[in-house]
Amino acid sequence: MLDQIHQSIDKLYSEMVEIRRYLHQYPEISFHETKTAAFIAGHYKKLGIPYETKVGGNGVIATLKGGKPGKTIALRADFDALPIQDEKDVPYRSKIDGVMHACGHDGHTATLLSLAKVMKDYQYELPGTIVFLHQHAEEYAPGGAKPIIESGAIDHVDAVFGTHLWATTPLGVLQTSKQAFMAGADRFELTIQGKGGHGAYPHETKDAIVIGSQLISQLQQIVSRRVDPLDTVVVTVGIFEAGEAFNVIADKARLVGTVRYINPTLQDKIISEMEAMIKGVCTSNDATYSFDYIKGYPPLINHASEAELLLEIARNIEDIKETQEVNPSMAGEDFAYYLLEKPGAFFFTGAQKHENPYPHHHPKFDIDERSMPIAAKTLIEAYYAYQEK
Amino acid sequence: MLDQIHQSIDKLYSEMVEIRRYLHQYPEISFHETKTAAFIAGHYKKLGIPYETKVGGNGVIATLKGGKPGKTIALRADFDALPIQDEKDVPYRSKIDGVMHACGHDGHTATLLSLAKVMKDYQYELPGTIVFLHQHAEEYAPGGAKPIIESGAIDHVDAVFGTHLWATTPLGVLQTSKQAFMAGADRFELTIQGKGGHGAYPHETKDAIVIGSQLISQLQQIVSRRVDPLDTVVVTVGIFEAGEAFNVIADKARLVGTVRYINPTLQDKIISEMEAMIKGVCTSNDATYSFDYIKGYPPLINHASEAELLLEIARNIEDIKETQEVNPSMAGEDFAYYLLEKPGAFFFTGAQKHENPYPHHHPKFDIDERSMPIAAKTLIEAYYAYQEK
Amino acid sequence: MLDQIHQSIDKLYSEMVEIRRYLHQYPEISFHETKTAAFIAGHYKKLGIPYETKVGGNGVIATLKGGKPGKTIALRADFDALPIQDEKDVPYRSKIDGVMHACGHDGHTATLLSLAKVMKDYQYELPGTIVFLHQHAEEYAPGGAKPIIESGAIDHVDAVFGTHLWATTPLGVLQTSKQAFMAGADRFELTIQGKGGHGAYPHETKDAIVIGSQLISQLQQIVSRRVDPLDTVVVTVGIFEAGEAFNVIADKARLVGTVRYINPTLQDKIISEMEAMIKGVCTSNDATYSFDYIKGYPPLINHASEAELLLEIARNIEDIKETQEVNPSMAGEDFAYYLLEKPGAFFFTGAQKHENPYPHHHPKFDIDERSMPIAAKTLIEAYYAYQEK
Amino acid sequence: MLDQIHQSIDKLYSEMVEIRRYLHQYPEISFHETKTAAFIAGHYKKLGIPYETKVGGNGVIATLKGGKPGKTIALRADFDALPIQDEKDVPYRSKIDGVMHACGHDGHTATLLSLAKVMKDYQYELPGTIVFLHQHAEEYAPGGAKPIIESGAIDHVDAVFGTHLWATTPLGVLQTSKQAFMAGADRFELTIQGKGGHGAYPHETKDAIVIGSQLISQLQQIVSRRVDPLDTVVVTVGIFEAGEAFNVIADKARLVGTVRYINPTLQDKIISEMEAMIKGVCTSNDATYSFDYIKGYPPLINHASEAELLLEIARNIEDIKETQEVNPSMAGEDFAYYLLEKPGAFFFTGAQKHENPYPHHHPKFDIDERSMPIAAKTLIEAYYAYQEK
Repeated sequence: MLDQIHQSIDKLYSEMVEIRRYLHQYPEISFHETKTAAFIAGHYKKLGIPYETKVGGNGVIATLKGGKPGKTIALRADFDALPIQDEKDVPYRSKIDGVMHACGHDGHTATLLSLAKVMKDYQYELPGTIVFLHQHAEEYAPGGAKPIIESGAIDHVDAVFGTHLWATTPLGVLQTSKQAFMAGADRFELTIQGKGGHGAYPHETKDAIVIGSQLISQLQQIVSRRVDPLDTVVVTVGIFEAGEAFNVIADKARLVGTVRYINPTLQDKIISEMEAMIKGVCTSNDATYSFDYIKGYPPLINHASEAELLLEIARNIEDIKETQEVNPSMAGEDFAYYLLEKPGAFFFTGAQKHENPYPHHHPKFDIDERSMPIAAKTLIEAYYAYQEK
Repeated sequence: MLDQIHQSIDKLYSEMVEIRRYLHQYPEISFHETKTAAFIAGHYKKLGIPYETKVGGNGVIATLKGGKPGKTIALRADFDALPIQDEKDVPYRSKIDGVMHACGHDGHTATLLSLAKVMKDYQYELPGTIVFLHQHAEEYAPGGAKPIIESGAIDHVDAVFGTHLWATTPLGVLQTSKQAFMAGADRFELTIQGKGGHGAYPHETKDAIVIGSQLISQLQQIVSRRVDPLDTVVVTVGIFEAGEAFNVIADKARLVGTVRYINPTLQDKIISEMEAMIKGVCTSNDATYSFDYIKGYPPLINHASEAELLLEIARNIEDIKETQEVNPSMAGEDFAYYLLEKPGAFFFTGAQKHENPYPHHHPKFDIDERSMPIAAKTLIEAYYAYQEK
Repeated sequence: MLDQIHQSIDKLYSEMVEIRRYLHQYPEISFHETKTAAFIAGHYKKLGIPYETKVGGNGVIATLKGGKPGKTIALRADFDALPIQDEKDVPYRSKIDGVMHACGHDGHTATLLSLAKVMKDYQYELPGTIVFLHQHAEEYAPGGAKPIIESGAIDHVDAVFGTHLWATTPLGVLQTSKQAFMAGADRFELTIQGKGGHGAYPHETKDAIVIGSQLISQLQQIVSRRVDPLDTVVVTVGIFEAGEAFNVIADKARLVGTVRYINPTLQDKIISEMEAMIKGVCTSNDATYSFDYIKGYPPLINHASEAELLLEIARNIEDIKETQEVNPSMAGEDFAYYLLEKPGAFFFTGAQKHENPYPHHHPKFDIDERSMPIAAKTLIEAYYAYQEK
Repeated sequence: MLDQIHQSIDKLYSEMVEIRRYLHQYPEISFHETKTAAFIAGHYKKLGIPYETKVGGNGVIATLKGGKPGKTIALRADFDALPIQDEKDVPYRSKIDGVMHACGHDGHTATLLSLAKVMKDYQYELPGTIVFLHQHAEEYAPGGAKPIIESGAIDHVDAVFGTHLWATTPLGVLQTSKQAFMAGADRFELTIQGKGGHGAYPHETKDAIVIGSQLISQLQQIVSRRVDPLDTVVVTVGIFEAGEAFNVIADKARLVGTVRYINPTLQDKIISEMEAMIKGVCTSNDATYSFDYIKGYPPLINHASEAELLLEIARNIEDIKETQEVNPSMAGEDFAYYLLEKPGAFFFTGAQKHENPYPHHHPKFDIDERSMPIAAKTLIEAYYAYQEK
């Protein structure tokens, strides 16, 4: 029967492309993706698959109960876009100024909607229940996964699978990991409050630029001295803003940055090390500060046996030429939250379009749409395989 | 006769105030002070004192040749204003939006114009020649003094005296120095060009914020290790601008700052030390840079005997209660250029208005106008004393 | 037959302990271990197993050719000691002042010698050839492995196995890795040559302490910014020596340290980054330097299938309760060189003696001697299993 | 009569040289100069001038009461030597191993002893009282001046004068200042207590070398940012000692250094800034520290009118070709304490011997002995001039 399903998926390819390109032209940014949600809901309405809307925000969840007993498994696709101006020269370019599906979530949605259409036809002999989990707001922490979980929507789910079409992985390659697959990604904002004054009279001031510079030097030690060399941590200050005039000593400096880590137990350690350094540097300069550390998504840790299952079922899919167990990506993904609650695994479906592909979030980002049926087949294979686990 | 002159000056006080308040309401910024120049020229026209306009730019120079032989001595007053919004609540507040006489040059001009009116009456018995040197553009390097000198306007002058009404020195106090009186003040702009990239992949980038921070730490050593502890140098970075997104490593950092120094021989040393540090830090990080060092006004070094003369003649002026030999101010002043060419001295005339006066360049800056006749008397006393030197 | 061998090994336990304790009392430091080599040679002479001495230095290699055809497999034990004063209070404490078997190589040697004695009895039915590789000088780079390889001694060997009795791993646990198992470990010595002088006149000097401090801050960036966060690198300055008097600016600073890394391709990158930083910091301070980077042992990368074989045969050994695939140790080991030439794998044999064991190289270091028969059994099991590979 | 005295001094020149050379051969270090003290006392005994010994330690004070009324004025000479090996190749080289008069105190003593011998002959017509103040232990804080003052020895003194023979000032030049003449000189010792460990495991340690380096970078800001640019401060770390093995992270770092300052009010500020920085850096690294700040001699501030008097009387001394008012020397001198109690002034008597003279405290230091009679004449001229003040 899975062979038949594969064929059905292939038959839907042009519709899949049509959906994806429609969504591509009408992107909506995180937490504002109401039209997209309505579009998704309309699809399920047409299919006659029961669904809920406004799940944990703009989420849409459709439930296809099979004719045979079995496990309940959620397949997740996110559907928000980014505040980026589309610079591609293609007919399906974004029609919304300054908003773009620059990460492929349009493809995720088209994949899942098409898979739902296919599976509706197999409902009678389907074991278990497929939960089509359309999640909003993946791009912007705190994200949509958390409120969806808090809404109870996956309480009765046995496992969760999801994929990301990945523009820098060749078509036909599936990548996953039996352990950490994507990083924890946090954000911080620090304002150092010194005391400004005339550039010629430093002793009457507390020079926020010098204090900030000193802190940045010290922050390097979190990675170089404070965490196990075998662990993976990044502390980046992406913005340093201070001062307005060449001859006036800056009263405050604004430092904004990101922290990435793989080992979940490190988050608290990094925060407390940063706080100790900030406090030490500021008090030794008689300056004050405000420090906001905004916890983003936790590291995405695949469950080993579910990742193993993915690697195994990939063999059944003709279009997948190669599977790779890879080192974790330093990017973040709120699919991580589902895996803190339920068994499951996340994987990349190769979707590289050009030899030198534009990376995710680039104004010229695009995917090879042939990745979509591959993703659909992998998800449904995982569904079936998990039934027998 | 000097007693008479003093009395004549005092009699002109209300006119002096009137002129100053008129100028205060119609300020013009450096290099654009054409109406002020015309106002000054009109004054000399009315007095029948010959004058030249457009000297080295907007400068106006009037020459009062006395009936007796003697030396030619220039008395200088600058007349430009600043791009600052006047926030004072007084009837004579600036009528020009965003422009303000926030440094007292209006008072300098009123002082010199009134002194000219007085001295016109004494022309017959006047020994020597008074050059009333109205200089434009003191506030903004390269300033007006340099082109005025280059125009040859002071070639035949024997000495130059000038004063600054000083808002943080009490009325009745004259301050000067027999050596360095004001600092050299330069400006620099540095752009560090690293290589940007994703905040999670530092090894693919050259982090301009970390490089800039490291440089700022090292720049501290110019003052702490590279110059004689007995010398006075300040290196201030007033602006640090880098990065636009918390999770993107900044490709470039812009550092803008000022250098102050008293000992004229240090300027070149400081520049070469800065260049060595910038080059060392950038190349060790495989980054490039562009560094502009804009030499401002040199240190203002009074000539000892002319400063001594000021301290002596101050005793003849009843309104001056105290003379002070002071440490150099770290501010800059292009009167410095005149003193590189001719004997002379510069001094501060106390003009403090309130107990907690607003500093120069403050939006609420103001002066005690009674300082103007004191300044006028000091200048003319210096003129007479120098005739006998 | 392996069961019989296991029993034979167990029977030899007290002799094994005796050998180990004898060696423990007469330790010799790296490259000077001639008496130990003679002791080893004497053992093989007595057994009637042919051997060579002075292999690549003080190495001793005995060769037991089995009665059946098969592969030639080297089992390696190192036998040098350390310049550490033994502080244990045991009857077998080191009798040599300042020298101690503080890393367990005495145990390695006793294990291999006893295994040789056992296997001599099984020579007739033994498939293949056992090479008993007694290596000198593991503790001090450039080590003994390299010259032994260069002597051609392992040219005809098909595979190499070795173990380290590990004092902080519980008895009954075998640890290994299918990839990197131990780090590359290098050493560097840097002398910064500034210019000394009176502590009150920094401008006449080039302060080597300030220069060195600045460099150390910058070196942190190798780990924090220059290498892939997923890679493992450590740069440690262990010694900072500069200056002799509180009021004299130091003319030179000596910095000595170590670099550790797992990914072999990183060594050259780290060296060139360090050189760029040292050069940049020194030239920007007009100082000179001499920098020696002494490459130590490369990372020890196990061959995956040989490590897998170890994990499998461990199940045949009753005393091994648990096998662990572990993250790489940051310590170095010149067994790495053998694995660059031949298939093979290295493993830790748990030898923890106390609940809070003293670490390797500690003056009170000791092992649980019951680890020795376990090591012997694992080595011979690996030998047999590899014959069938 | 002063002319006669000058002649008498000149006549004593060879004896003066003899005394100086004798002392030069038998130097004694600070606080251990008992034989020198006995030698001095013997001199006064022979002259019949009453004296006290063991004043405030090894001090010797002789008092010559003149036949006429007048003021009591102390003339001070110090007499301790330094722990330096004499490397000069002269007949009068130090006979004491490792001890040397490398600062000219032998010359000071010879000068004062000879002056006493001269003045004994003029006792009858001498106005006032000369106090010959032979001070021990100038070279090593807390010094001899303080206990001498505390002993009450200068309570009845009206003024104090002293000189230093100065090896880098040409013969015939007298240098002094009407204000600060020599710096305050303090010493500090800091031990940073981190936590040691294996060089490959920084996260288990608190790396004292990294912490110390960071602190040294920050200490630069005391001079560059915390004190008025017009003030003169030096903070030098002269010793940085940490670590013993290249592959072991140092548990502690020892930093020893000196602070120099001219403005007496800055001492407390510098101490508190240092403490804030040390505390900030250490606590932000979770390290502890012990910090000893040993206050040395305060800045030597001459009294203006007494310095003026020196500059005036210098004109009476034929051998003095030039007087210079100089910037303060950054060296320290415990004559400073006398000037905190009594009017007086200190001056340098030019004693340069070679074109490129060895500096004070150099193993080849020497003086031009012809400076001694000049010093004697200046001191006695100052004595007489002060009588008439």
